[in-house]
Amino acid sequence: MSNFEGVTVVKKANVYFEGKVTSRAVLFADGTKKTLGIMLPGEYEFGTDSKEIMEILAGDLSVLLPGESDWTDIQGEGEFTVPANAKFKLKVRTVTDYCCSYIAE
Amino acid sequence: MSNFEGVTVVKKANVYFEGKVTSRAVLFADGTKKTLGIMLPGEYEFGTDSKEIMEILAGDLSVLLPGESDWTDIQGEGEFTVPANAKFKLKVRTVTDYCCSYIAE
Repeated sequence: MSNFEGVTVVKKANVYFEGKVTSRAVLFADGTKKTLGIMLPGEYEFGTDSKEIMEILAGDLSVLLPGESDWTDIQGEGEFTVPANAKFKLKVRTVTDYCCSYIAE
Repeated sequence: MSNFEGVTVVKKANVYFEGKVTSRAVLFADGTKKTLGIMLPGEYEFGTDSKEIMEILAGDLSVLLPGESDWTDIQGEGEFTVPANAKFKLKVRTVTDYCCSYIAE
């Protein structure tokens, strides 16, 4: 799916890490939310509130998921899931375009 | 207006200047288009195809509009208009959140 149709977009951006990570929220008619974001090269740690499915649309990065000791590499497109109330780390090597889905449980 | 409702969002980002300028397209039911974007600190030159209204949602920057010899400063919120088929320059000092409207003439 290359477009999201019939959605609400929050105009103002979310800005993290001095702008090296930014996103905008997309709200769906069914009450769910996604963010579309960009990460510039760097190392980041994020925390989740809800479960998150991170779809990488383009990029070159490694992710350390909670409870894991090995990093997983993603080049180009990819996806990973992070449980609720968890932390995960990213090493981003090139400009990375992502779509994050927030999953209520 | 803090949200755009009933719109289509193009999932994939537009990436310029090695990711220092990124945006996503928002398509409206009336056929018009806006982009919501982020500019990191730097100096940029852009060219327009159509007339553009650039609304600065947050930031600290200066703009040199076509035909002008003086830079205009914008701190916080602001707006400027660029004619079609023109070039303009920006000096961006802090992470800048913008909404660009493309105006058919």
